[in-house]
Amino acid sequence: MDTALTFDITRRLPGTLARAGVIHTPHGEIRTPAFIVGGTKATVKAITPEQIRSYGGQAVLANTYHLMLRPGADIVRAGGGLGSFMNWDGPTFTDSGGFQVFSLGIAYKKGIDAVAHTQKGNAKLAVVSRNQLVRVTDEGAEFRSHIDGAKLLMTPESSMELQHTIGADIHMAFDELTAPLASHETIAAAMNRTHAWAERCLKRHSDLNMEHTERGENLQALYGVVQGARDKALRRESAAFLGARKFDGYGIGGVFEPGEISSVVRWVCETLPAEKPRHLLGMGSQPADLFLGVEYGIDTFDCVAPTRQARNGALYTLNGRINISNTRFKADFSPIDAACDCYTCQHYTRAYVNHLFRADEILGATLASIHNERFVVRTVDQIRESIINGTFFAFKQQFLARYYGDKLPAGVSL
Amino acid sequence: MDTALTFDITRRLPGTLARAGVIHTPHGEIRTPAFIVGGTKATVKAITPEQIRSYGGQAVLANTYHLMLRPGADIVRAGGGLGSFMNWDGPTFTDSGGFQVFSLGIAYKKGIDAVAHTQKGNAKLAVVSRNQLVRVTDEGAEFRSHIDGAKLLMTPESSMELQHTIGADIHMAFDELTAPLASHETIAAAMNRTHAWAERCLKRHSDLNMEHTERGENLQALYGVVQGARDKALRRESAAFLGARKFDGYGIGGVFEPGEISSVVRWVCETLPAEKPRHLLGMGSQPADLFLGVEYGIDTFDCVAPTRQARNGALYTLNGRINISNTRFKADFSPIDAACDCYTCQHYTRAYVNHLFRADEILGATLASIHNERFVVRTVDQIRESIINGTFFAFKQQFLARYYGDKLPAGVSL
Repeated sequence: MDTALTFDITRRLPGTLARAGVIHTPHGEIRTPAFIVGGTKATVKAITPEQIRSYGGQAVLANTYHLMLRPGADIVRAGGGLGSFMNWDGPTFTDSGGFQVFSLGIAYKKGIDAVAHTQKGNAKLAVVSRNQLVRVTDEGAEFRSHIDGAKLLMTPESSMELQHTIGADIHMAFDELTAPLASHETIAAAMNRTHAWAERCLKRHSDLNMEHTERGENLQALYGVVQGARDKALRRESAAFLGARKFDGYGIGGVFEPGEISSVVRWVCETLPAEKPRHLLGMGSQPADLFLGVEYGIDTFDCVAPTRQARNGALYTLNGRINISNTRFKADFSPIDAACDCYTCQHYTRAYVNHLFRADEILGATLASIHNERFVVRTVDQIRESIINGTFFAFKQQFLARYYGDKLPAGVSL
Repeated sequence: MDTALTFDITRRLPGTLARAGVIHTPHGEIRTPAFIVGGTKATVKAITPEQIRSYGGQAVLANTYHLMLRPGADIVRAGGGLGSFMNWDGPTFTDSGGFQVFSLGIAYKKGIDAVAHTQKGNAKLAVVSRNQLVRVTDEGAEFRSHIDGAKLLMTPESSMELQHTIGADIHMAFDELTAPLASHETIAAAMNRTHAWAERCLKRHSDLNMEHTERGENLQALYGVVQGARDKALRRESAAFLGARKFDGYGIGGVFEPGEISSVVRWVCETLPAEKPRHLLGMGSQPADLFLGVEYGIDTFDCVAPTRQARNGALYTLNGRINISNTRFKADFSPIDAACDCYTCQHYTRAYVNHLFRADEILGATLASIHNERFVVRTVDQIRESIINGTFFAFKQQFLARYYGDKLPAGVSL
């Protein structure tokens, strides 16, 4: 391919922002909408790449921050780049490192919840003033490794260099994260800085792609990341600003609840250029996220919750989530979900998986992760089919009613 | 099959006790010599049954003691029996529970080393007098669960009932374990009790097989377990006593060093009926164990060390063991062992596995376990070929010299 990425939209759902399409990358295609599998540290936790294929995973997203610290971007590159290093021959994404710089830098002393849930405006700045753990300037973000506390600087340029070294097909621009309840002034300032950084990312990215061309290597794609928290005007401003730049696609950043997808994601996707792919960053394990995300314009999702929850024994079924460690499953010889076509449900019973969890056996994490991942991947694949068949709304209503019963997430209606 | 087990010896190695053969079970055949994969709690740790097949594993051995406590033998039976419960369609073994009753009952308070390494004769009896953790009478062994300390009784009859409930193809008779350095009197007493228990096992086993026949179920096989520690006369007496009874095969119990295989195993195998299969219980991860075991008459081995060591990053190569977490492998993009045909070596580098271990990723345990298991399975398979080709001694010398260099285990010579 002589372009980093192309995107064909094959079907749109009238009256919505939803569409079905295909993203073409140098490592193959992604049929969208698609759930991108979380491969944080260049491994999908407890799962082999063959197992990812077996449950229909199309692409993997790894974290630049984690790989930068361990094993180091140079090691990944020397191993043939992200896909080759981890034995995954399909498309790959990396995030910019920004989310972890702002959350884990604080987590090293404070725990990640300090960012996500503080009521005091911008947790990051509050922590900066006390501990100097993350210091943001126009240049970039100075932070401490959550592993050893070492002081590090990440800039738009260094994020691009790291991502090109790691070598995924699709990169994200380096953005500034704000706490969900930060002040309007703080959010606006972070957005403006994100925009200035985005332009620096584009410049450095373009230079690095030129180097790839000279070396006969694949081009890499860059998504701009829209910020603006829950503010309609700022989200639209951010989408318009970035939408006017030559990005290959767009990520939607920031932390919000499923019920806010129908506002935040809609504002952004109405404004972004319609022909470019859109990725919802770090969100999309719950059915409500997936249906609403697609309805309001999302093409790809990534989220590590399905595997993380799986390792805790929280398993998805069409009738809602169950905790497989529960005593009531000790002698239940039905599959986790009778309607599921995953490897785990085809070969194992709830009783067996219950036993593995109670005996603290590693295979439990593997079987549970395969099941949850298959559940989410299949749901998004079925959403894609429902767009193509024009049955989206009937499917959404039936699926969410069955999954949530009368406990729909706040802000979600059928 | 209307017999529980048949054994065909296809080749003998002149001047030794070694032979190649095939054990036929209701769940398929085992080409011997063979390494039986350790599936302690009805799972081979960190590995799926398909992965066991991929590295050539032919049969799995699970532990009656562990399954009795969790999930309970009745649950395994309700799940279709051991193989069906864990999704393994090949042959299966269970041990009697005896080893764990004597070692883990003490381990609940004392740690397993108290049995294996005490210099004071019979650790078990010493502990009994202090803590009443294991109390042996002619009836059976009263012990405490290592999970919750609950008081339990295991008898020859209950061991048979548990094993028939769990439903493996090949069972072991309930035996009494003594510490390696126990007094002659203690060892002889335990051996005599083991013999009395063996006859009770045979009786109960035969009744239970009759019930299987009435229900149209597969018959199950029973191995007698030879004891006698390091004492030549006792080992020969035990092998002769049990060899004269109608067991389907024989296990060799007790704890000893690789260098003692050429004495202990030889005394036993010279005495046992030649046409019956012989299993070395809980030993056989190290190349010296495997070569000497086969040379002195062993047909099957089981050992959990390959997976346990794998989870600690200790990986087998033809040139000896390496610790994959070591910094020197951080940028080593060769496979764990260039000569290895396992899934891990075909698809991953030392650098990647090093990264997984340093990042504490579950996939590291899986990849490492597959590698170590393949190493041991392949080595035993190659030993089998060398018996058939008549190249056993040349292969043994070349293999052990390369693996150990000038550090041969005590008592082992080339």
